[in-house]
Amino acid sequence: MASLHASARFLYRNHHVFYRCQNNFELPTKIVLSNDKCKKSLYTNNVRFSWTKRKINNEWKGNNILKSSGVILALLTVGLSVYYINDKKRRVYLKAAESNAGAFNPKLPSHTLKEVAKHNSKKDRVWVTFDQGVYDITDFIDQHPGGGEKIMMAAGGSVEPFWMMYGIHKTPKILALLEQYRIGNLSVEDAKIATSNMDDPYSNEPQRHPALNTSSLRPYNAEPPSALLVDSFITPTALFYVRNHLPVPDVDEKSYELEISGVGVKTTTLTLEDIKKFPKHSVTACIQCAGNRRSEMNQVKLVKGLEWGPAAIGNATWSGTRLYDVLTSLGLKEDDPRVRHIQFEGMDTDVTNVPYGASIPVEKGMDPRGDVLLAYEMNGEPLTRDHGFPIRVIVPGTVGARNVKWLGSIVVAEEESSSHWQQNDYKGFSPSVDWHNVDFKTAVAIQELPVTSVIGEPASGASVRVDKGRIKLKGYAFSGGGHQVVRVDVTADKGQSWHTAQLIQEPTRPPRHWGWTLWTADIPVDPKASQLEFWVKAVDNSYNTQPESFSHIWNLRGV
Amino acid sequence: MASLHASARFLYRNHHVFYRCQNNFELPTKIVLSNDKCKKSLYTNNVRFSWTKRKINNEWKGNNILKSSGVILALLTVGLSVYYINDKKRRVYLKAAESNAGAFNPKLPSHTLKEVAKHNSKKDRVWVTFDQGVYDITDFIDQHPGGGEKIMMAAGGSVEPFWMMYGIHKTPKILALLEQYRIGNLSVEDAKIATSNMDDPYSNEPQRHPALNTSSLRPYNAEPPSALLVDSFITPTALFYVRNHLPVPDVDEKSYELEISGVGVKTTTLTLEDIKKFPKHSVTACIQCAGNRRSEMNQVKLVKGLEWGPAAIGNATWSGTRLYDVLTSLGLKEDDPRVRHIQFEGMDTDVTNVPYGASIPVEKGMDPRGDVLLAYEMNGEPLTRDHGFPIRVIVPGTVGARNVKWLGSIVVAEEESSSHWQQNDYKGFSPSVDWHNVDFKTAVAIQELPVTSVIGEPASGASVRVDKGRIKLKGYAFSGGGHQVVRVDVTADKGQSWHTAQLIQEPTRPPRHWGWTLWTADIPVDPKASQLEFWVKAVDNSYNTQPESFSHIWNLRGV
Repeated sequence: MASLHASARFLYRNHHVFYRCQNNFELPTKIVLSNDKCKKSLYTNNVRFSWTKRKINNEWKGNNILKSSGVILALLTVGLSVYYINDKKRRVYLKAAESNAGAFNPKLPSHTLKEVAKHNSKKDRVWVTFDQGVYDITDFIDQHPGGGEKIMMAAGGSVEPFWMMYGIHKTPKILALLEQYRIGNLSVEDAKIATSNMDDPYSNEPQRHPALNTSSLRPYNAEPPSALLVDSFITPTALFYVRNHLPVPDVDEKSYELEISGVGVKTTTLTLEDIKKFPKHSVTACIQCAGNRRSEMNQVKLVKGLEWGPAAIGNATWSGTRLYDVLTSLGLKEDDPRVRHIQFEGMDTDVTNVPYGASIPVEKGMDPRGDVLLAYEMNGEPLTRDHGFPIRVIVPGTVGARNVKWLGSIVVAEEESSSHWQQNDYKGFSPSVDWHNVDFKTAVAIQELPVTSVIGEPASGASVRVDKGRIKLKGYAFSGGGHQVVRVDVTADKGQSWHTAQLIQEPTRPPRHWGWTLWTADIPVDPKASQLEFWVKAVDNSYNTQPESFSHIWNLRGV
Repeated sequence: MASLHASARFLYRNHHVFYRCQNNFELPTKIVLSNDKCKKSLYTNNVRFSWTKRKINNEWKGNNILKSSGVILALLTVGLSVYYINDKKRRVYLKAAESNAGAFNPKLPSHTLKEVAKHNSKKDRVWVTFDQGVYDITDFIDQHPGGGEKIMMAAGGSVEPFWMMYGIHKTPKILALLEQYRIGNLSVEDAKIATSNMDDPYSNEPQRHPALNTSSLRPYNAEPPSALLVDSFITPTALFYVRNHLPVPDVDEKSYELEISGVGVKTTTLTLEDIKKFPKHSVTACIQCAGNRRSEMNQVKLVKGLEWGPAAIGNATWSGTRLYDVLTSLGLKEDDPRVRHIQFEGMDTDVTNVPYGASIPVEKGMDPRGDVLLAYEMNGEPLTRDHGFPIRVIVPGTVGARNVKWLGSIVVAEEESSSHWQQNDYKGFSPSVDWHNVDFKTAVAIQELPVTSVIGEPASGASVRVDKGRIKLKGYAFSGGGHQVVRVDVTADKGQSWHTAQLIQEPTRPPRHWGWTLWTADIPVDPKASQLEFWVKAVDNSYNTQPESFSHIWNLRGV
């Protein structure tokens, strides 16, 4: 098994109480989600579902410039669903010190840690501590958005080891909610003990590019500005969106090891050097977060998940060893009837040492034309830490969630990964399914993402120069499963007339169109209009296209 | 080359003037298209694009029965697009005798055939004859919906050989239009000569099931009633929709030969017996006409094509020899870089002896998991004549148009089929592209069809028994390219609440879900409603779903 830096390993192993998933802290009012980590995070992309619309304010001043008048409208769906691209930084991780939660309250009684520890079941009431506060959260258990069993992991002890991992909790609203359950203080001595051995699991994160818009710091999740995104066919590594579920492992490439085991395959451990001995294979593939464009779906009704804009997607050239070559060399047959899935585990682990995990159907993993890679390079350079150094699985055409980073092991199996992210996340439901009636077993794990398109430039609300009665737009389009985008249509008059965009894409053959498509369009506009709204929709080579609004595809995870 | 019955071959070869495509005879007023044959006929399916909605009239009589009140509304799209299922038989082929067109007109001068023959260019004026009529159609040439070059094939001669092939012309409107260009009579003797050697190419058509609703008799095109269609997971052969582009060849299985040639493959001729020597392989695959549900798109704006309802689709078990096995046995390598397409030609030919043709990408044809068959059985019996006896290509997951019937030859090539049906038909465009500005070269040939779903029962407008406050619905759903339908949602309140249907489908593995899905749903309804409207939408395993209306996906061919 690959080695992590000692500090990181130590950290995870010292937490005997674990809390793996903590996923729904949205309150009834709209809040900006800063973290959905080990929930059901990467899901299918709502982007793809709906058209991108843009409203551009046009204040005709006789100088051929459309000027913005305030709030930027980036309407993404016909009629019903609207999303706003704004440049305001998203609210992120709030230090506990910024609120009064957990502060000593002289009006309340004191309790010892020992006493708190006895209250670890509903029968005995459920107590937890935070800083110096003691709380009876029994009546909140069933309301916990992440599920009662998750919050019970902290029963009789401190919530802080979990909250340190899952920064989303430290928002003023959640801290205020917690204080409603306050029943006492922890003794000063016990309060010291409770937090003395807690390291910060995020103390060893890599440097990030300052242009990235952060949607969550712990774990780190960020996307580039959309205008930068559509500026280059190959997304620069530093600007490629980052979707981490847990702290970033710091892996030593010299001691790195990949374990391979399972049905029909010889159990093996490969070093990085071993992996690089196989023929090097490169593919240009677009990777997209399932939650890309989730912020637009939130306009219909709040969903659970990171507040992604339209840039949780990127197109890179990945190089590495074909999974097919590795598994074939270990004796696996493409048509072994016992094998159904190929499971991957990352080296990023939660407080209980459970790693991130996912699986793909063997038909994809063992398809010689599936181009699944054990990638060690991104855009010609070794992977960066944020993108999975030293080895990341690249599953072209498949949702980001299955492109497991910091790959630690591969298991060839009859069953799907039992990982939370495979079983209880990254699945879609009807708009009438919500958290009170969802049964994750009834839906299939998302693999491919549907067709989508986005206007990247101009930004909504921007002042735009009208050149000879026209405005230039650019954006991206993508369809999962190796489907090629064959047409992108843009309208400036709500569908009365459509203009076919020019496409920029790699000349690939079906069904291996793994890369995205950039598009440009030079749209004639009404010179008298004071405000313009653009819509875009893409069609792929299955002639699938995008629905018009989010209202009928809304789903509880915003995927 | 396979042998046709002598009579059929004779017929085609005797017509030295040819007319291959004759595709746009819609007049400005709405007419029911009886024939779109060699136009751009099978296209992608509009069905898949939009949701099926049904309106059922509910006259609450205290007896738990919803009764119809007249016209049946089978609303297929949200808000904008509506299709009506009606039981009226479509208007088909009208005998010329039913109009006065071509009758002797004593007020007009007489012309000999020889004289007519001189008028075969715009410079000399373009004359044609019909029965005893002589017409100067010079000014109509550029207005001919099928293009000027097509109509010029009849210049200086009779239009009748073409109209006999393409029955769509013999409608009262077109005959009246023709009479506007009348300039004279053909001499009685010449009129006799003009038609004396014309056989009826449709004199040897097979018997058809009386339950089929005919959308065109010449060539024969028909679909079953949708309630019958969704009654069985395997569509009975006799009720399987028929989409013929030309008269049905009558092939002698004993003398049948399949020619195989092209790049990287040994030129070979196989008998039926030769083909059957390969291992027999069976797949259950749904075949869908590209124009399925076109009648709904017509509600937005008229398109060119057969007026298909929602039943130009069927699910059958096909057995035969894998194309992969045949071509591999002839030396073709899966990864031969010179090979891009596999072309098929049918034995159904037009008046110039040009056969129906199509092609598929080699990546599909030579995919060992692509399941492309040279099928000789449908549902356990030899193919019927209407379905391609003795050999039909089955391309699972691919539009009906590429499932070439009466297979005469296979050509392995770098290029796509040059056939009209591959190059200038079966392609989709933006709603702003119409016949005046279409360039078929700018679009890719349709292969896979997108996700779709349809309510098959109850029929729109039917009286429906409400059982304990609920109504049972059933229908089908399908997605091309081997995608599995993973969810079908039904609403009785315009999307305020959605009900997840029960699915009936084969337990296949990705990406080989070639069959369709039947679904049933038991929907709670408002007992006080006098009329109900149901909508259905499907989601496939790429999480692609259906757009809500036809207005933004309208395209000139209704695909």
